[in-house]
Amino acid sequence: MKKYTIGIDYGSLSGRAVLVEVKTGLEVAAETFNYPHEVMYEYLPDGKTKLGVDWALQHPQDYLDVLANTIPKVLEKSGVNAEDVIGIGIDFTACTVLPVKKDGTPLCFLDEYKSNPHAYVKLWKHHAAQKYANKLNEIAEQRGEKFLQRYGGKISSEWFVPKIWQIAEEAPEIYDSMDRFIEAADWIIWQLTGVETRNTCTAGYKALWSKKDGFPSKDFFKALNPKLENMVEEKIGGNIMSIGEKAGEITEKAAKLTGLKVGTAVAVANVDAHVALPAVGVTTPGKMLMIIGTSTCDVLLGDDEKIVPGMCGVVEDGIVKGYLGYEAGQSCVGDHFDWFVKNCVPDSYYREADALGFNIHRLLREKAQVKKPGETGLLALDWWNGNRSVLVDVDLTGVILGLNLLSRPEDIYRALIEATAYGAKKIIETFRGNGVYINELYAAGGIAEKDAFMMQIYADVTNMEIKISASSQTPALGSAMFGAVAAGSEMGGYDDIKSCAEVMGKVKDIVYKPIPENVEIYKKLYAEYEKLHDYLGRGENDVLKRLKEIKKEAVNG
Amino acid sequence: MKKYTIGIDYGSLSGRAVLVEVKTGLEVAAETFNYPHEVMYEYLPDGKTKLGVDWALQHPQDYLDVLANTIPKVLEKSGVNAEDVIGIGIDFTACTVLPVKKDGTPLCFLDEYKSNPHAYVKLWKHHAAQKYANKLNEIAEQRGEKFLQRYGGKISSEWFVPKIWQIAEEAPEIYDSMDRFIEAADWIIWQLTGVETRNTCTAGYKALWSKKDGFPSKDFFKALNPKLENMVEEKIGGNIMSIGEKAGEITEKAAKLTGLKVGTAVAVANVDAHVALPAVGVTTPGKMLMIIGTSTCDVLLGDDEKIVPGMCGVVEDGIVKGYLGYEAGQSCVGDHFDWFVKNCVPDSYYREADALGFNIHRLLREKAQVKKPGETGLLALDWWNGNRSVLVDVDLTGVILGLNLLSRPEDIYRALIEATAYGAKKIIETFRGNGVYINELYAAGGIAEKDAFMMQIYADVTNMEIKISASSQTPALGSAMFGAVAAGSEMGGYDDIKSCAEVMGKVKDIVYKPIPENVEIYKKLYAEYEKLHDYLGRGENDVLKRLKEIKKEAVNG
Repeated sequence: MKKYTIGIDYGSLSGRAVLVEVKTGLEVAAETFNYPHEVMYEYLPDGKTKLGVDWALQHPQDYLDVLANTIPKVLEKSGVNAEDVIGIGIDFTACTVLPVKKDGTPLCFLDEYKSNPHAYVKLWKHHAAQKYANKLNEIAEQRGEKFLQRYGGKISSEWFVPKIWQIAEEAPEIYDSMDRFIEAADWIIWQLTGVETRNTCTAGYKALWSKKDGFPSKDFFKALNPKLENMVEEKIGGNIMSIGEKAGEITEKAAKLTGLKVGTAVAVANVDAHVALPAVGVTTPGKMLMIIGTSTCDVLLGDDEKIVPGMCGVVEDGIVKGYLGYEAGQSCVGDHFDWFVKNCVPDSYYREADALGFNIHRLLREKAQVKKPGETGLLALDWWNGNRSVLVDVDLTGVILGLNLLSRPEDIYRALIEATAYGAKKIIETFRGNGVYINELYAAGGIAEKDAFMMQIYADVTNMEIKISASSQTPALGSAMFGAVAAGSEMGGYDDIKSCAEVMGKVKDIVYKPIPENVEIYKKLYAEYEKLHDYLGRGENDVLKRLKEIKKEAVNG
Repeated sequence: MKKYTIGIDYGSLSGRAVLVEVKTGLEVAAETFNYPHEVMYEYLPDGKTKLGVDWALQHPQDYLDVLANTIPKVLEKSGVNAEDVIGIGIDFTACTVLPVKKDGTPLCFLDEYKSNPHAYVKLWKHHAAQKYANKLNEIAEQRGEKFLQRYGGKISSEWFVPKIWQIAEEAPEIYDSMDRFIEAADWIIWQLTGVETRNTCTAGYKALWSKKDGFPSKDFFKALNPKLENMVEEKIGGNIMSIGEKAGEITEKAAKLTGLKVGTAVAVANVDAHVALPAVGVTTPGKMLMIIGTSTCDVLLGDDEKIVPGMCGVVEDGIVKGYLGYEAGQSCVGDHFDWFVKNCVPDSYYREADALGFNIHRLLREKAQVKKPGETGLLALDWWNGNRSVLVDVDLTGVILGLNLLSRPEDIYRALIEATAYGAKKIIETFRGNGVYINELYAAGGIAEKDAFMMQIYADVTNMEIKISASSQTPALGSAMFGAVAAGSEMGGYDDIKSCAEVMGKVKDIVYKPIPENVEIYKKLYAEYEKLHDYLGRGENDVLKRLKEIKKEAVNG
């Protein structure tokens, strides 16, 4: 009898489930459920409680609805019997966190708190804790906290501690009332298994935990706010399990919700980018995966802990057990192109695209790709949304050089693509320069899947072959794989992610290979990029920051 | 009886005549005639003789047709009797030159040469003599030719000597056959008066002549090409008269052509930008006029000859007799905005403009002007077409910094306007820093007349009041004024341009005054502009030139 595993990828606006055959990796059925509450930027669901600037909340009921809607559907679509589903795994955006009671009930489910914004899920892109992040970085630096190094020297406002600190300061009643503050990823596992477990990936990348040193000290948390002194014991700590382990089994309650059988294995939760690595077959060091979307997340395994400037984090067991997991990222990739087509492309191009039956991105690519590298005469710095790796600086902004009266939209579009490729190369070189080797390059995500032109540029710029994920649902596939590992070989699954990935992880047949003459030209262009990157990004000329300051003064004063 | 004077402004695509009342400066009638042959970029009028890359020719018959069509029309429209027209003056684009026979007949009028491109008028923007300009600069520098200094260190391919040298090399039969090589401006005066005269303005700014030193030496010309050794005596030199003098009087032949009376005074020819200065009432040092169009030309009088880096030229009697005339320029002003609306503005903006009954430039200005200085967060270098003054470098290209995902088309549009204002300030400061004082600022041209938003930015950036020419035909008015000076006070005109300009030169009532809080912000932004201007323009980082090199290699190889 064939066995199956289910993976669910919780994104920013929907959850996507995929049902996969365990012994072939074949994706048999998929289903998406859009969150009814989407992202709440302005109001709570009551329509009257207004949120502040930079807030971004979600409703945990939506996550449960994903389970209730997608799992029965993939079973139904595929005709697979729930008894043949041996495991389930999930991945989630992170750090996406919520306050809950001892029994797992979200505070926002309680009448008492349903009008309190702090009772809801703070989505990863909730940026209203920036001032706490700033203070945290200041205090950690003053105290010489060693953990800072593991995060490229800076803690993001998107992460765990700034978010809980915001609650402690702005809604102490919520802080006091919550028994646990938990990643939505782990909360879902709790709902499925009845037991609270946390995962090494979010604990490590988002909550400052490390296998070796645990969480930061009480003294440190006390220095932030005396209320936080015992935060770890009171609200967080406990059962942190490694990625790749079994968190538990489907309970009766969960079986009712999902249609799965009681006792089905449930994997420890994971993060969308990290879970993708085994899905392309990678479970060993030296192979970097770029998950390319609106932004790009890079994940990579290493043998030892190296301190690499500007990475997002290094976590032992954070991606695959037994290895150090490295994460880096580019803040703005697909976002560049969306900005460009909305703001900078004339009507005549849209009409031409319509006439040809292309979307506008395809038209621009078709026009751009007839040119040779260097032929546009343009160079851009890919900082429209700041620079995550390797400069870790949200105050940097985008730059284009080389414009003249013959510069065409497709030229600028191409320059933006090239800029993101230079950014990727900068990350690779920074890892290499700090003792983390990279021999192979993989890409996943919609852009990697569809945009051969862009992938060829990446191959030419990095001078590396690029393999592409075979799945259109790479993270969901990865989660399904961890479900099969949670089940273990006895149940028809796998005993570890390595043996699982050998079978279920897949890349496409096409491999983008560097074209030697392009490589030579891009070496020259990258040298120019690097020079300006350092000039404008490392303090020699802080014009970009001063422009932002002047802008702030203009807006405020 | 009221007296009148006629000015004709020969532009790149048409000639515009204006009939002006001498004692009031009132513009009574105007008429435009479009050149039937426009600019010939690809073919001769035969439709089969192909021109090379960067060629730009005109047909001299078109210039005669301007006389025959516009002068009778303005007389007719106004009801003014030709007997009451006391003088005529003209201005022309420069350096716009043609080969003619001893009697003034253009070589292209002769059957023998009408299929030879070199027999036609080389328009100012004919750029096919670039390699001769490059060689000329090299040789002049090697020889330590002093004249280079008067032209900011570099001779343009648009000027007189590269153009005649191109003929000597590429069409020696034309070089040998022509008796004279002459500015179209001077050729028109020859047609009107029957006598060949040349003017100090084009001789000085375009043909390397100076009142003190005359033309460059025979040795120098010989070093270019032995054929050119005696060029001055053979093809050029002779009767060089000062701007403001009377060249002669309308001949019988010219009277038939134009409807003017025989004996009407004809002024020495002039150049479009230079003739505009008295038209705004300026005949003394310290007052810079910016003629703002697709590019900007700056003219200014000085008491002594100062060597100012990056100006286009300094010529004694070049603008107003008795003074040094300084010229500088910005290669790309209106051209930026045209490029932008053609390449970078989305359809939704055009639809909004249509709905409001605005043209697209107005819509962008309306959207841009609600922001405060600095609020866009953007900074641009105005080098889309290279940099004329003060860097004299055609290989520089445009730059934009500060872009983010919220940058809107109107923000970039505003940044381009501001960039041209910074460029203007850089010119003013360079003059001041080299001993040429500037106390007042004037502007003329379509943009100056219509774009209050841009003029206010110029006032704020330069921290100077800006006065605007009252005439929509500033150069034509200036030419008419020189016509009245050629006639002299005895005939009801004026004895010099100074007394004439006091009456006939005019500015609008509106004066753009710097707004102190804007001035403060723009000081900061200009400091950023200046820093990048020097970094990218003066050799610290020649990335823009290297991008151009890489582009050339890509295109050629």
